[in-house]
Amino acid sequence: MSLSMHRVSVPVFVRGLKVLSDLLGKAEAYAEQHGSVPDALISARLADDMLPLSAQVQRASDTSKLSVERLSGVPAPKFEDNETSFAQLQQRIADTIAYLDSVAESDFAGSEARAIKLNFGSFQPEFKGDDYLLTFALPNFFFHIATAHDILRNQGVPVGKRDYLGAYA
Amino acid sequence: MSLSMHRVSVPVFVRGLKVLSDLLGKAEAYAEQHGSVPDALISARLADDMLPLSAQVQRASDTSKLSVERLSGVPAPKFEDNETSFAQLQQRIADTIAYLDSVAESDFAGSEARAIKLNFGSFQPEFKGDDYLLTFALPNFFFHIATAHDILRNQGVPVGKRDYLGAYA
Repeated sequence: MSLSMHRVSVPVFVRGLKVLSDLLGKAEAYAEQHGSVPDALISARLADDMLPLSAQVQRASDTSKLSVERLSGVPAPKFEDNETSFAQLQQRIADTIAYLDSVAESDFAGSEARAIKLNFGSFQPEFKGDDYLLTFALPNFFFHIATAHDILRNQGVPVGKRDYLGAYA
Repeated sequence: MSLSMHRVSVPVFVRGLKVLSDLLGKAEAYAEQHGSVPDALISARLADDMLPLSAQVQRASDTSKLSVERLSGVPAPKFEDNETSFAQLQQRIADTIAYLDSVAESDFAGSEARAIKLNFGSFQPEFKGDDYLLTFALPNFFFHIATAHDILRNQGVPVGKRDYLGAYA
């Protein structure tokens, strides 16, 4: 018995995106309760040269849908990265989950050995599918979920580690 | 073809711990270059009720070694969480990697179905081994690596996303 490529990607991403949706819900409620402008949170960042909260959500969306597209060959929807409200960010997450849920276990056949090459200008890493998922896609995905959480904590929003881990109780 | 429980845990954790070691090395070099006290970075945090950098390293160590212990049954070393210098944190990482590298693929036989119960007081989640790894251990591990990175960025240390992702070039 072992883990399929689908098992280590789709449900893991869907679960993380639902955690992110929950974190955003708590952030929006916090802004409303404090009569503050939602944009102050949506544009918050941890360093001048880091991405703001909105872009952490966009990158979590992209990392999950593009990695599943690369591994499965099922085309992912394209989004314009123009979300500026909590409602729009929630829609982005919902649309991403809808795509992920549409990809079947069988679409991942042979994905472990698939050659994947990324292009970030001077940085063009090449991977086998399994290495891509385990050493790039998953770490990258969790980076953006954790950093979204960290931005909210840094801004004083009452969320915590258990919100990040998700409810089990 | 598919992924073994060992493949989705041990090398993923080892790789993440090496990334963390590299981040700490850059943080130490930055403190030296700026004539600042290393402890200012080691005790830095993103929110008053979040853990400082040193504890992010300790929790990344614990999350990796304890999850491998729970899945494989191979006892992990215990550490006292008393590291206060970069050298001690690097040793903690090295000792954790040495344990992880000592656990064999065969030690994970049957780990997918192993019952795992955690005890955090009122929070006592129960899992099958595969769910534990994918929905708790891996997200928790990457949280601490990403948050260590985020703390350093927030403190102005010149590290970046590529340091977190690790070198492929």
